[in-house]
Amino acid sequence: MAKKLVTFGEVMMRLSPPGYLKFSQANSFELVYGGGEANVAISCAYLGMKAAHMTRFPDNAIGRAATQFLRKNWLSTDQIIYGDNKLGMYFLEKGAVHRPSVVVYEREGSAFSLIEPGMINWKEVLEGADWFHWTGITPAISDGAAICLLEAIKTANKMGIMVSGDINSRKNMWKYGKTMQEVMPKLVQHCDIVITSPRGIHEMFGLGEIGGKFKDSAKELMDAYPRIKNVVGKKRKSISASEQEIQGRIWNGTEYIKTETFEISHVIDRVGTGDAFAAGLIYGLLHYDDDLDALNFASAACALKHTILGDVNMATLDNVTSLMGGDTSGALKR
Amino acid sequence: MAKKLVTFGEVMMRLSPPGYLKFSQANSFELVYGGGEANVAISCAYLGMKAAHMTRFPDNAIGRAATQFLRKNWLSTDQIIYGDNKLGMYFLEKGAVHRPSVVVYEREGSAFSLIEPGMINWKEVLEGADWFHWTGITPAISDGAAICLLEAIKTANKMGIMVSGDINSRKNMWKYGKTMQEVMPKLVQHCDIVITSPRGIHEMFGLGEIGGKFKDSAKELMDAYPRIKNVVGKKRKSISASEQEIQGRIWNGTEYIKTETFEISHVIDRVGTGDAFAAGLIYGLLHYDDDLDALNFASAACALKHTILGDVNMATLDNVTSLMGGDTSGALKR
Amino acid sequence: MAKKLVTFGEVMMRLSPPGYLKFSQANSFELVYGGGEANVAISCAYLGMKAAHMTRFPDNAIGRAATQFLRKNWLSTDQIIYGDNKLGMYFLEKGAVHRPSVVVYEREGSAFSLIEPGMINWKEVLEGADWFHWTGITPAISDGAAICLLEAIKTANKMGIMVSGDINSRKNMWKYGKTMQEVMPKLVQHCDIVITSPRGIHEMFGLGEIGGKFKDSAKELMDAYPRIKNVVGKKRKSISASEQEIQGRIWNGTEYIKTETFEISHVIDRVGTGDAFAAGLIYGLLHYDDDLDALNFASAACALKHTILGDVNMATLDNVTSLMGGDTSGALKR
Amino acid sequence: MAKKLVTFGEVMMRLSPPGYLKFSQANSFELVYGGGEANVAISCAYLGMKAAHMTRFPDNAIGRAATQFLRKNWLSTDQIIYGDNKLGMYFLEKGAVHRPSVVVYEREGSAFSLIEPGMINWKEVLEGADWFHWTGITPAISDGAAICLLEAIKTANKMGIMVSGDINSRKNMWKYGKTMQEVMPKLVQHCDIVITSPRGIHEMFGLGEIGGKFKDSAKELMDAYPRIKNVVGKKRKSISASEQEIQGRIWNGTEYIKTETFEISHVIDRVGTGDAFAAGLIYGLLHYDDDLDALNFASAACALKHTILGDVNMATLDNVTSLMGGDTSGALKR
Amino acid sequence: MAKKLVTFGEVMMRLSPPGYLKFSQANSFELVYGGGEANVAISCAYLGMKAAHMTRFPDNAIGRAATQFLRKNWLSTDQIIYGDNKLGMYFLEKGAVHRPSVVVYEREGSAFSLIEPGMINWKEVLEGADWFHWTGITPAISDGAAICLLEAIKTANKMGIMVSGDINSRKNMWKYGKTMQEVMPKLVQHCDIVITSPRGIHEMFGLGEIGGKFKDSAKELMDAYPRIKNVVGKKRKSISASEQEIQGRIWNGTEYIKTETFEISHVIDRVGTGDAFAAGLIYGLLHYDDDLDALNFASAACALKHTILGDVNMATLDNVTSLMGGDTSGALKR
Amino acid sequence: MAKKLVTFGEVMMRLSPPGYLKFSQANSFELVYGGGEANVAISCAYLGMKAAHMTRFPDNAIGRAATQFLRKNWLSTDQIIYGDNKLGMYFLEKGAVHRPSVVVYEREGSAFSLIEPGMINWKEVLEGADWFHWTGITPAISDGAAICLLEAIKTANKMGIMVSGDINSRKNMWKYGKTMQEVMPKLVQHCDIVITSPRGIHEMFGLGEIGGKFKDSAKELMDAYPRIKNVVGKKRKSISASEQEIQGRIWNGTEYIKTETFEISHVIDRVGTGDAFAAGLIYGLLHYDDDLDALNFASAACALKHTILGDVNMATLDNVTSLMGGDTSGALKR
Repeated sequence: MAKKLVTFGEVMMRLSPPGYLKFSQANSFELVYGGGEANVAISCAYLGMKAAHMTRFPDNAIGRAATQFLRKNWLSTDQIIYGDNKLGMYFLEKGAVHRPSVVVYEREGSAFSLIEPGMINWKEVLEGADWFHWTGITPAISDGAAICLLEAIKTANKMGIMVSGDINSRKNMWKYGKTMQEVMPKLVQHCDIVITSPRGIHEMFGLGEIGGKFKDSAKELMDAYPRIKNVVGKKRKSISASEQEIQGRIWNGTEYIKTETFEISHVIDRVGTGDAFAAGLIYGLLHYDDDLDALNFASAACALKHTILGDVNMATLDNVTSLMGGDTSGALKR
Repeated sequence: MAKKLVTFGEVMMRLSPPGYLKFSQANSFELVYGGGEANVAISCAYLGMKAAHMTRFPDNAIGRAATQFLRKNWLSTDQIIYGDNKLGMYFLEKGAVHRPSVVVYEREGSAFSLIEPGMINWKEVLEGADWFHWTGITPAISDGAAICLLEAIKTANKMGIMVSGDINSRKNMWKYGKTMQEVMPKLVQHCDIVITSPRGIHEMFGLGEIGGKFKDSAKELMDAYPRIKNVVGKKRKSISASEQEIQGRIWNGTEYIKTETFEISHVIDRVGTGDAFAAGLIYGLLHYDDDLDALNFASAACALKHTILGDVNMATLDNVTSLMGGDTSGALKR
Repeated sequence: MAKKLVTFGEVMMRLSPPGYLKFSQANSFELVYGGGEANVAISCAYLGMKAAHMTRFPDNAIGRAATQFLRKNWLSTDQIIYGDNKLGMYFLEKGAVHRPSVVVYEREGSAFSLIEPGMINWKEVLEGADWFHWTGITPAISDGAAICLLEAIKTANKMGIMVSGDINSRKNMWKYGKTMQEVMPKLVQHCDIVITSPRGIHEMFGLGEIGGKFKDSAKELMDAYPRIKNVVGKKRKSISASEQEIQGRIWNGTEYIKTETFEISHVIDRVGTGDAFAAGLIYGLLHYDDDLDALNFASAACALKHTILGDVNMATLDNVTSLMGGDTSGALKR
Repeated sequence: MAKKLVTFGEVMMRLSPPGYLKFSQANSFELVYGGGEANVAISCAYLGMKAAHMTRFPDNAIGRAATQFLRKNWLSTDQIIYGDNKLGMYFLEKGAVHRPSVVVYEREGSAFSLIEPGMINWKEVLEGADWFHWTGITPAISDGAAICLLEAIKTANKMGIMVSGDINSRKNMWKYGKTMQEVMPKLVQHCDIVITSPRGIHEMFGLGEIGGKFKDSAKELMDAYPRIKNVVGKKRKSISASEQEIQGRIWNGTEYIKTETFEISHVIDRVGTGDAFAAGLIYGLLHYDDDLDALNFASAACALKHTILGDVNMATLDNVTSLMGGDTSGALKR
Repeated sequence: MAKKLVTFGEVMMRLSPPGYLKFSQANSFELVYGGGEANVAISCAYLGMKAAHMTRFPDNAIGRAATQFLRKNWLSTDQIIYGDNKLGMYFLEKGAVHRPSVVVYEREGSAFSLIEPGMINWKEVLEGADWFHWTGITPAISDGAAICLLEAIKTANKMGIMVSGDINSRKNMWKYGKTMQEVMPKLVQHCDIVITSPRGIHEMFGLGEIGGKFKDSAKELMDAYPRIKNVVGKKRKSISASEQEIQGRIWNGTEYIKTETFEISHVIDRVGTGDAFAAGLIYGLLHYDDDLDALNFASAACALKHTILGDVNMATLDNVTSLMGGDTSGALKR
Repeated sequence: MAKKLVTFGEVMMRLSPPGYLKFSQANSFELVYGGGEANVAISCAYLGMKAAHMTRFPDNAIGRAATQFLRKNWLSTDQIIYGDNKLGMYFLEKGAVHRPSVVVYEREGSAFSLIEPGMINWKEVLEGADWFHWTGITPAISDGAAICLLEAIKTANKMGIMVSGDINSRKNMWKYGKTMQEVMPKLVQHCDIVITSPRGIHEMFGLGEIGGKFKDSAKELMDAYPRIKNVVGKKRKSISASEQEIQGRIWNGTEYIKTETFEISHVIDRVGTGDAFAAGLIYGLLHYDDDLDALNFASAACALKHTILGDVNMATLDNVTSLMGGDTSGALKR
């Protein structure tokens, strides 16, 4: 039977000028929805897992349209709650070659940011789940969001559900009075799998060094938080906005493992590639015995996301296993 | 030489599903910008006047794109100020026949709403202007906006610039602690021309009756605020979302004048038709000696706006004078 | 708690040139999905009911995309079965004024038409349902489809679930060796509510007259099939492809009731308006005590569908109750 | 065997903003091609006739694309000649209700206008034709075009091919040194069928009166040019840009015949409706014995064109005969 | 005088999501038509040859639209026959980098597959032709199609028309009871030019080896079928879906010739590149004395097709000769 | 305070098929406007300078739409003059890899080409300017344009405004009776900065050699025209239509300086990249003391333009300085 993932976090409306147009050239916006955690849930659903995303949407026609996007992309949505009247959104101008993509956020005061402790019955939401995943964006949004997240993690722990966190967070997001150094440790101590980088480990926990070796930082983190079984990272080389290289790495407490480098020569959409990696990792760890296989699955999923428009990875299981098996030919399927 | 109009108010990004699609069907949004006062300025610019709009935009790529929309539509934009990071926006689902259009606002916390007294040098902004126009939306947005507006009106009075206000306001917009009953009188007392309705006059000033005669309410208003020279109204009959009827009416202190009824049999975009009326009125009063001519001009402009997509009236002077002259044939121009 | 509807039938891909383009002008097709029964389920879901649609899709990327359309439009889809490789489709060229719309079908050999008895566990599918709805298209598609439908109706009868049939059928659809005269009586005898016309009653059952009075034909049908509680009809006047009139009528065994006439002056999409009527009838009979209210609800829903692109009615409960309450103004909702 | 029509004239690129956008709102243009005479040829081809259009296109990629448009729309194109480098074009902003459509031409110096006597082998081009049709636009373009046209008409006369002319012409088009009063009589004297109006007859030939009765003017014209067998007219009432009425009329030397009035309540594209009338007339006169039938066919074809985007009528024979038979319902064809 | 090519085979509607969207993201399909043999005819037409394609389309609006596509792309279409009601179609989801393109066919029961011996008058259709071309897809579709093809080839032989076959065929296409091993030899024995690969030669004729040398397999094939003058192949390296390499090779009975490798660094549309190669080969063999020139022409044409959207190569003669002359710069032409 | 640039030249409507479609595939054109000199002005405006463009547009709706495009892109437009009725235009079919882009011009007889001496008050237009820029296209258009340009340059000289000319010109453009050899020296002698190549220097002035060294040709030019302070060039290598390399070079009278090579691996739009270089040079020379910095700025701006659709460079100051500082990563900006 299909494994089930539950995620929790904000979902934003994403508005982007068609193709490579700049904001100043746009007379229309392409409309999708995305958010780090929901992206992971949807990616896993396209791989064949069951998935539900927990969030809070405004109680209006815009909020319902956002739910419909999640439903279309195979998520369970019955548990979603509604209230207030603002959906967070972000504007994306897609770059190319030397021209960077530009993202402008308008997410303050969103229905999700106004979530309050107790609004969610986590026991019900997590019922039947095999895995719970969160990211470092959620606790940065508001105190309410951070507390709800902690409730979720603790409930998952009690219910014997695996917990993974993609914990990197941008400092300038934390505006509600708490710092990431204050909040993250409380969340991470209950996690089984952590996706991060030496920079993240140093900034959030004061461990390792910013430019240090992945393995060393990972070890320090696992010493400090013994529940963690794997510290996972993704090394990206941005040759240009149109060419990227990806390599997965993992410290599982005994071994330091790296994948081959995946070269994406013609990027179509870079957004959400980290989430595709996380989703691939969850799928991989749930379905492969070998950590390298799981990591290769994650990296291949991440590489494939670069060729798919929107925030979410719609690669099929077959796409990912082909690529992780070394077939980079992209040859036509009839 | 062309007469010059200055307006002041919020400009929002307007996002609407293409054609008659509902929000739930949209995969893209058509993008224009609009706001009651800027709509008036642009409409007057298309009629051949000079026009500048004063507003405050976020200091980012989205704010600059909004300015570019105003520039394209002939407005002066050098005076616009920038700050903070949010542009107000609204979503519009266009209705048809019995199905109403739906508007969802996300404007709280916008750069404009955070405007503060003293941010604008009104003497400079109003330099060379013949007319200043405002609407009842601006004072409802925030205390800062209301105070800035009062500064503008008083400065205009001092500089001998005509002041018109399209003063109707929606009660549920007033969320910052003041009521319209408290704020509007201070603004209206300095106005030369007021566009409103018996309902508005009653709700805001406690004068006349909601269902009363236009002329009676108008008289009471002019008695209370003797600076007012004309009280102008627009009677709309909504046969359906696709068919509308418009008739202008004016009380000029001595005469009660009404236009013929303009029947719009195939509505293309209803939004901004009131602003087109206001713009037509300003143009009309500045260019015609006769009040009925001015009112006919306003009503014809309003009727034409119903056939133009977006918030603003792009009808030409020739379009308006033809229609006010009775040519309803819409016959092809080569 | 929300009432639940289950429907059963083929869902086709609908491909139509944008706007009013003819097939010979199209370089792209707009893509939605539709089918008489699924249209009813979705319409009820937009009104707030729970709804599931049972069908069979090809086991490929196209079949999965069809499922995603149903999910997006609020249906439960877990019960859908997959097999074979063809999705039925139809091409729609939208007409205007005197120019008729044109429909071309390519549905022979579809996965749905290859459905076989026993493929569906109806007890499971109908679990929790309050209502089961079918149309006269399904038994015309194939023997397998007709038998599966009969299984469904009988199971519904056993489980105490209301059964409605929109039974009109096009003779030229019956190509698999059985006639409608042979098949329909077996299905109709288990129905509680029947939507049809004097022509249908005559053609399928040899009762009444083609041009006879609705009430007389309805009476004869109810005499012959005593389980039927209501015979319901919809009278359409096609003034042109762009203007339609709709009036509902019902014979409930004791009374003959008609609604006012709903005039749709600017048709946007005529397809699926009959399904919107059926959905409105189901909702109405489940939520109103009075037959005229239910019928008015059905007719208002039908009228509103004419203004919505695609096969399905996305009108909200509020839209329908407003219109059935006599508000034809289509006035803007903020 | 299908009858064959040959036409001669300029074909322009038509660029129009999508939908009802104004020029100032357009970021793209919809692209079709059109010209009075080619429109007639294509319309006849859609009705089932054989048709060839003779023109001259620039000898470049744009000229070849124009030819491809004609080919797609069923015309023979082997006879077309190429030279020079400019394709005439026109910009069309579509109006609605009281807002007129706007047309801006850029056709001076086009490859067609540079056509010279002797460039066309009319015997070859007219081989197998049953009918030759021209309009009053062609002789207005250039002396070369006028002379080539006269060659064509004379050759047709010799070959026993019927000649029709839709002779109205706009005075301000005649810029090459000759007047229409000078040129038109030489062309019209060789014509069998003439489409015109009292105004046209007066302006071009000094006969009848501008506001005179159709029958009287027609008689005078036939007296002056005895080859003419029918003088045909089309009366249009422009209620608004969105609503039109059409009525055909004919003077056949013995009888004055008028059709019923065709009301087009929702105009989609007015351009080319006169050409659709001419095409319908040619088809009608070739296929019906009765003049009223032919005229009804012409008027119905004209009415249907109002619902089709672009310059050309793509109505089918079935569409036209249905409408001329009185079926205005536009009811769906499956 | 231009040489004339005749081709025979099915033409399908091709529906593809815009750009790089996946099926699950598409709300519209881009519409073109294609089929291996028609693609060759059109490609030759764009190079300046005369070309006609023989096929059978459904006798409805969709079939006629397909014919119009062929006409637009310069083909003669008068010979096409019509019957039944289904047009074959295929859905194409375009891949990128490691993500493969996906093709889903819905072609069973198409009008073409129902073609029957004797329906085509091949003497008439081949009148004036210099070359007849077919592919291995046609005999796989149905017995009728295979027999009609054999009639065509034999007629061509009698009329002294060159016959080429692009004979590779997919085993899983042969569903009507015959195998390719049974059918292909009867067709190939009458061919002058064969395009295939060692794998094809082995699978269809049991000659050579799957992984064998091209020259060896080609020799064996020519020994077995002495009418064959050239065995031609195209070696493709799929670096990724976005990068391809192409090299032509030929065995002409005395020499084994290979071209340089053409590197396509940014693929726009891979579909139909094999047909572009075949068209280039036909053009090359008809217009160049030297086999290497002909092969280079074919390979350059194939390379250029990768940059053109749709099934057909619209490269100009100038494009191909430039590239075969070594100019890979793609420098702007004014 | 921001420096101000004034430019003078024709602005054309640019019509291009969407994406990579060929002319034969287009059913719509994307619409922007462009012209060598206006492109420079707009590019400088996006970098933060003040800029005005002087031109002459037709006095109709199309001319006004062109002005609106310039306004939107930050230019001052009050000085623009209107007359006649034709806007020059060009059609652009975008190439890829080995397939060249194709440009077709229709600019003869444009309103700009009919400009006459004395129509422009250059003292007023150049008021407040720091720099005047022209290109070799303008004097090739008409005698009137050439004379107006000379007036501008001389006025600029008198007013102490820097003058730069991007002087390369295509011989086949000079159709009005004068040659470039005759006209260019009169213009160049008043210039401070010249952008050209050894080929240009040889063709226009008979100096140096076509294939000569840049430095040598530049020296000869500066000897002949001592006002010139810098001769600047841009070396382009066209690997394919999709890959380009750019390197700037300058001779400043004492030093010969070259930049690094900028590699653009995924070209989006090549048109206007030379203008982006010129704009970058003007900005660079005005804001950097060091010639290499200025040249690097120019080359980076040029490289970035390759990734922006349309004629004009919309890169921000931050984009250019990042790239000139060596950051080629195109990493996302939030």
